[in-house]
Amino acid sequence: MSTFFKTAETFIPGEMTLPQKYYTSPEVFAREKERIFDRYWFCVGHHSRIANPGEYFLQDILGENLIILRDRQGEIRAFFNVCRHRGTRVCEQPEGRFKNSIQCDYHAWTYALDGKLIGAPFMKDVPGFRFEDFPLRAAHVRLWAGFIFVNTNLQSEPLPFDELFAPLQGKLDRWNAPTLKVMHRERYELASNWKYIFQNFNECYHCPTIHPMLNQFTDYTSGANDLIEGPFLGGYLELTQQSMTVTGRICALPLGDLTGGDDKRAYYYSLLPNLLLNIHPDYIMYHLIFPHDPGHSTIISEWMFHPEAASRPGFNPQDAIDFWHQTNLQDWHVCELSQRGVESSAYTPGWYTPRETLLAAFDRDYLKTMGG
Amino acid sequence: MSTFFKTAETFIPGEMTLPQKYYTSPEVFAREKERIFDRYWFCVGHHSRIANPGEYFLQDILGENLIILRDRQGEIRAFFNVCRHRGTRVCEQPEGRFKNSIQCDYHAWTYALDGKLIGAPFMKDVPGFRFEDFPLRAAHVRLWAGFIFVNTNLQSEPLPFDELFAPLQGKLDRWNAPTLKVMHRERYELASNWKYIFQNFNECYHCPTIHPMLNQFTDYTSGANDLIEGPFLGGYLELTQQSMTVTGRICALPLGDLTGGDDKRAYYYSLLPNLLLNIHPDYIMYHLIFPHDPGHSTIISEWMFHPEAASRPGFNPQDAIDFWHQTNLQDWHVCELSQRGVESSAYTPGWYTPRETLLAAFDRDYLKTMGG
Amino acid sequence: MSTFFKTAETFIPGEMTLPQKYYTSPEVFAREKERIFDRYWFCVGHHSRIANPGEYFLQDILGENLIILRDRQGEIRAFFNVCRHRGTRVCEQPEGRFKNSIQCDYHAWTYALDGKLIGAPFMKDVPGFRFEDFPLRAAHVRLWAGFIFVNTNLQSEPLPFDELFAPLQGKLDRWNAPTLKVMHRERYELASNWKYIFQNFNECYHCPTIHPMLNQFTDYTSGANDLIEGPFLGGYLELTQQSMTVTGRICALPLGDLTGGDDKRAYYYSLLPNLLLNIHPDYIMYHLIFPHDPGHSTIISEWMFHPEAASRPGFNPQDAIDFWHQTNLQDWHVCELSQRGVESSAYTPGWYTPRETLLAAFDRDYLKTMGG
Repeated sequence: MSTFFKTAETFIPGEMTLPQKYYTSPEVFAREKERIFDRYWFCVGHHSRIANPGEYFLQDILGENLIILRDRQGEIRAFFNVCRHRGTRVCEQPEGRFKNSIQCDYHAWTYALDGKLIGAPFMKDVPGFRFEDFPLRAAHVRLWAGFIFVNTNLQSEPLPFDELFAPLQGKLDRWNAPTLKVMHRERYELASNWKYIFQNFNECYHCPTIHPMLNQFTDYTSGANDLIEGPFLGGYLELTQQSMTVTGRICALPLGDLTGGDDKRAYYYSLLPNLLLNIHPDYIMYHLIFPHDPGHSTIISEWMFHPEAASRPGFNPQDAIDFWHQTNLQDWHVCELSQRGVESSAYTPGWYTPRETLLAAFDRDYLKTMGG
Repeated sequence: MSTFFKTAETFIPGEMTLPQKYYTSPEVFAREKERIFDRYWFCVGHHSRIANPGEYFLQDILGENLIILRDRQGEIRAFFNVCRHRGTRVCEQPEGRFKNSIQCDYHAWTYALDGKLIGAPFMKDVPGFRFEDFPLRAAHVRLWAGFIFVNTNLQSEPLPFDELFAPLQGKLDRWNAPTLKVMHRERYELASNWKYIFQNFNECYHCPTIHPMLNQFTDYTSGANDLIEGPFLGGYLELTQQSMTVTGRICALPLGDLTGGDDKRAYYYSLLPNLLLNIHPDYIMYHLIFPHDPGHSTIISEWMFHPEAASRPGFNPQDAIDFWHQTNLQDWHVCELSQRGVESSAYTPGWYTPRETLLAAFDRDYLKTMGG
Repeated sequence: MSTFFKTAETFIPGEMTLPQKYYTSPEVFAREKERIFDRYWFCVGHHSRIANPGEYFLQDILGENLIILRDRQGEIRAFFNVCRHRGTRVCEQPEGRFKNSIQCDYHAWTYALDGKLIGAPFMKDVPGFRFEDFPLRAAHVRLWAGFIFVNTNLQSEPLPFDELFAPLQGKLDRWNAPTLKVMHRERYELASNWKYIFQNFNECYHCPTIHPMLNQFTDYTSGANDLIEGPFLGGYLELTQQSMTVTGRICALPLGDLTGGDDKRAYYYSLLPNLLLNIHPDYIMYHLIFPHDPGHSTIISEWMFHPEAASRPGFNPQDAIDFWHQTNLQDWHVCELSQRGVESSAYTPGWYTPRETLLAAFDRDYLKTMGG
């Protein structure tokens, strides 16, 4: 287990919030696409969502629509939802199971689950037409701790995944992340820049004011951070109850054999550009952020439990779902208030407090990544 | 009757769909306005809609609102719906009948049905003000086969109508098009480029997949095209039933004395920039396309029957209305799926099949018209 | 009392309405912001709305949100609704009463009613942080005749208020404007340029056509104007009934000791950029116009009565409210019809009539203010 530093240790007085344009400018957003969204890896969920061959779901990312599926060999793939005939969206149902192939509903062009074109009426004998030239186009796919990451850049290579994720190797082993099972999903539409969602996640300075329930169950001045610089940030808070649930009680089978105090901690990690993890002894709840423009984002939140949790007595997932759904709504609301405020000509950067060191770290890494 | 060519004869392997920008770019759309919409003629319906003097309807075309009316001499006219006093929209009711004049509801400025300003309170004695200088401004109007065509260009002359329409002279004589009567209208809003609607209309390659009902009543590999190059395209399919109706039976008095097999055929013609004709032995159903921007269009579909059809036994227009309304919804849906697909960075032009030769012809003429 | 001129005296035949771009162009709107909205003073209502210390309301002006409040010393202030910590909107409730301070709901940063930062958790001991550097940012505020005027320009000084308002000194004394009390408010959203609202207000040429009720109670060819050039325009019409109410009768205690015929007149004044006053013997109804873009504006209309009116027999404010609410809807509708008309390529400037001299005066002053 990594060394933990007290949050306050890295506080630099006078570090200030980002200038207005980073939250409102289409030009900055275009540069974010180039420097961040097209190079980093977007999490689209956990592989347990498509446990069986042929299972798939659709995911919108920055104007693209991807078919995320498990092929017949069990491999996870991501295809652009665009027919190679006349460009039609191939698949409409947001999730489901393909039998052996993917067929476009317009002219019945048909693709295997590995993307190969295997059927195209009247094209068999057309001189010069080669089926192998027209597979569904693929996005890059990688896995970490059971989470599926994609990159939709067709022009150049994304950042090397293994190198980028090296600091996270083993990070979720204690909770057996790859074996867990997604059991609930919520979708939220926010009138907020994606970075406000990251920044709100990375401090509990607001917890006494906006989260009266959450604030009962953790001590927001406790804990420490083990990822304090770079694109991945986070640490833990001490729990004052068994878990972060409405009742304060454990609601499901523990996720692992948690020692060294981990059965009394809530961990939080933010992974640029779109994954926010909340890890508790008995469940993991994570947010996937999908930015649309400088002022709008979609968040998908999912709750994962032990694969055998549902068959054990005392399983009460609603206790965890209600806790975070209520807390999420409180958080999203202040993100929206921040967005409305920053759009004013009266906005000027303000000082970060000693309880917001991860935000300053996020901004430093962000500005470095954005370049000159 | 023109010579017909089998569709397949004109197939050129390797001709490909248009690049993305033609479906998504505001700059291309602006050029379409300049090269196509401002030079060609928009159909706004059939003259039977305003059979009597004073009858009118309003039509939106590319941000303009026109008053289409029949004047006291029986002539069809089209006026911009803009008062010459302070620019107010003169008429609000979408259709109706003017008595002897058109009065602006704001300050009671009044125009004759030929557009002349005939009333303007307090202006009679104003030095220098001449009523004849302020008529309602007129759009160009022409008629073909009973259809009303307009052009809203105030800067330069549209393409010469008679020359342009020469290939269509007499084309609808067999069905007595000028005498028919519009009896039903549907309006559809599409999130699709206008060209996808043309392209979908000009092939029946999709019929087996998306039109199970229609596909029962025609043989989509049958027929031939007599207009195979230029702004007007089309031909016919053989009917396997009496007509294209839900029951497959004739639903109204035949439109003419149809010989030479025409009583067993469904004809289809597309006229750049906005008229799509479906001609059956017992009725004509046509679409009027009104583009708004690269990704949005309105379609108005109208059903015309023999003027005496309603007074004859066996008149069952709903049989034709239901058939096409259901088929239309299937078509519009795939047009929207095409639009969503083409907006992806993964879209690249694909090969046309031997059953899409009119689409390749449409694209060739379109690119030529669009110029360098 | 000023000398009055008959409207017709200033009529110049051949003066024409503004070209299209003044109603539709984002560039013109940007220049209006620079030349008019950022230099002149926006009225946000009457001080009686916040009669007691701590009372406030929020007002949107051109993308800014202001907190308008009365502080503990009774002074009216206007603050940008932006926390100095991370830029969050501080206050959400559209109106209410602060106790002793304004607290941001996000991290509990707290401001006194004069704007000073008085609380910021964990910031007391941060080296270099000075509370006095982070007050809520203030907009300029002035009062005239009990009306609150603000200017949100943070870059340069607005036009000198006293000098600008000199022609209006004493103008509303007869009706005791500062002592009146706002008793009703309506909010309207218009798809219209703000200038059409001014222009519609400044003529009664439309009264016979669109205001059958109003036209019964005034003679629209009567009256005279005393402000005929510059940013402030207006005059009066003779009443043919006691007041402008649905019944035609006085509905409340007279506002003052009205002599010289003022008990039989309805006065109207328009103050660039956003205040339209309708003054009657027994109540004042005014419009506040808030432009959003070339084609959209919000109007807030408020009705003010004698402060003791409510305690007197015969008080029937609904009689005045209904009169103007109905009349307003008629006016807003024609403003929207004008906007739809002017967007046509067929729009060209038209001649003003002898009954629209104030519109020509408005346009002259407007064009002068807008500069080259």
